[in-house]
Amino acid sequence: MSKIKILKAKRSGFCFGVRRAIKIAFKTAEKKRKVFTFGPLIHNPQVIQRLLEAGVVPTEDIDNSEIETLIIRTHGIPLDLRQRLSQRDINVVDATCPFVQKAQKYAKLLQEEGYQVVILGDKEHPEVKGLVSYGGKDAIVLGANYDIGTLTNKKKVGIVIQTTQPLSLLKKFINDILIFVKELKVYNTICNSTVLRQKETKEIAQKVDLMVVIGGKNSANTTQLAKLCVNSSVRTYHIETASELQEEWFKNISKVGVSAGASTPEWIINEVIERIRDIGGNGDNG
Amino acid sequence: MSKIKILKAKRSGFCFGVRRAIKIAFKTAEKKRKVFTFGPLIHNPQVIQRLLEAGVVPTEDIDNSEIETLIIRTHGIPLDLRQRLSQRDINVVDATCPFVQKAQKYAKLLQEEGYQVVILGDKEHPEVKGLVSYGGKDAIVLGANYDIGTLTNKKKVGIVIQTTQPLSLLKKFINDILIFVKELKVYNTICNSTVLRQKETKEIAQKVDLMVVIGGKNSANTTQLAKLCVNSSVRTYHIETASELQEEWFKNISKVGVSAGASTPEWIINEVIERIRDIGGNGDNG
Repeated sequence: MSKIKILKAKRSGFCFGVRRAIKIAFKTAEKKRKVFTFGPLIHNPQVIQRLLEAGVVPTEDIDNSEIETLIIRTHGIPLDLRQRLSQRDINVVDATCPFVQKAQKYAKLLQEEGYQVVILGDKEHPEVKGLVSYGGKDAIVLGANYDIGTLTNKKKVGIVIQTTQPLSLLKKFINDILIFVKELKVYNTICNSTVLRQKETKEIAQKVDLMVVIGGKNSANTTQLAKLCVNSSVRTYHIETASELQEEWFKNISKVGVSAGASTPEWIINEVIERIRDIGGNGDNG
Repeated sequence: MSKIKILKAKRSGFCFGVRRAIKIAFKTAEKKRKVFTFGPLIHNPQVIQRLLEAGVVPTEDIDNSEIETLIIRTHGIPLDLRQRLSQRDINVVDATCPFVQKAQKYAKLLQEEGYQVVILGDKEHPEVKGLVSYGGKDAIVLGANYDIGTLTNKKKVGIVIQTTQPLSLLKKFINDILIFVKELKVYNTICNSTVLRQKETKEIAQKVDLMVVIGGKNSANTTQLAKLCVNSSVRTYHIETASELQEEWFKNISKVGVSAGASTPEWIINEVIERIRDIGGNGDNG
């Protein structure tokens, strides 16, 4: 097999919010035997495993009597849960991504200003479950295949978008809602790291024969990256670790693109690249 | 020539704001020998002529010492002009369209809330000259062929649109600006009468062989109607009165659409329809 050339996205791997949350978690665990996070701190099973070894344990049950210290995950939590936590005698450490915190604040503000709050994103995603709770009881979540439904009767609509969604969703929704509303307020809460990562990944996808996108299968932003590559008509594999790579994928391939989500650690990315080099005869992206 | 069928837009002719302004003007003129308007009250030369006969005189010079009563035109006036008027001993009667007043209020509000104010519309149009003055000294006007220029550095952008512009301009601009801004506030100030009139005119244009659009050559909303018809690939004539109609336009034509701007009086529309009937052998839109 001839040497495979690898194009690696410079902006792959940990974003600011993930790096910050992991630092907080390790630091908190240093002082305690065991600390909890409500749900996984970030969406990467391999990192969660390392955190677990350091005593950071995900739980879905905040009433668990064992909890002395609870770390709030990067994606944030719903408002009612936060209020319940504040009534209990436990130490709460907030590792919510600052950009998600901003989006929560904006959803709350829009509701206070009398807007019908719309959260664009995946309603099953923990970040969105948190965001919508800040938008008041009438707030609604619309995903990629939204039905505009009763919104056609609303005169004042306010929009917040999940930090990892593509700008195309925001554009499409505004385009559709504009004819119905008299007033529209939009907080473009897509985080900059997401925008730049998606942009770079799309550019690489257009130059290669095959894309490998690395990150948690449960990671929204990694899944988006893989989707963008598929939409660029390049064969794409979304993997979590190097062990998933298969030699046959690389037959007759001369250029491979590698990108990774915001919660994918550097060591996993490096392992994947080394493994591709082994398969492809030590090519490089020089 | 066989009978020509005429499809007349139900929503042609005076809108609420124009009807209101004309009523105000005639009523004001009843009490005085001579009253002035700053610029023409509405953009229809034939109506302006009738108003003139009743003693309503357009002027471009507000310092004219003859002025005792000044009527503000439907399109409104710039803020500094209004302030200058308030310092003079004259009777000011406001015939600004209530929808334009709202747009002015929103431009002012956006500026007070710290937005970079953008007025979408024709910078030479009196309504827009008024609107932009309410948006503060940094407010800018962008027309159909805008250059987004320095706006790419603005984080908070607020938009107001000339009441007679098509929704497509608002959609296009939002689509272009969205990637740069963090916060966007949009007042969709396109008036409902404009939306419905444009919609109906477009529908008729798709069913006929020829469109006749009636209204002032200086009327923005009439010009937009004619443009929409041209974009629907139907032969279109924009006329002010029946005297402009030419028999040869109707050769081999079986269906004619007729629409008119918001400042076109019913009597002109009726004269045009009668003249087309005369040319086309008394056809009807039954």
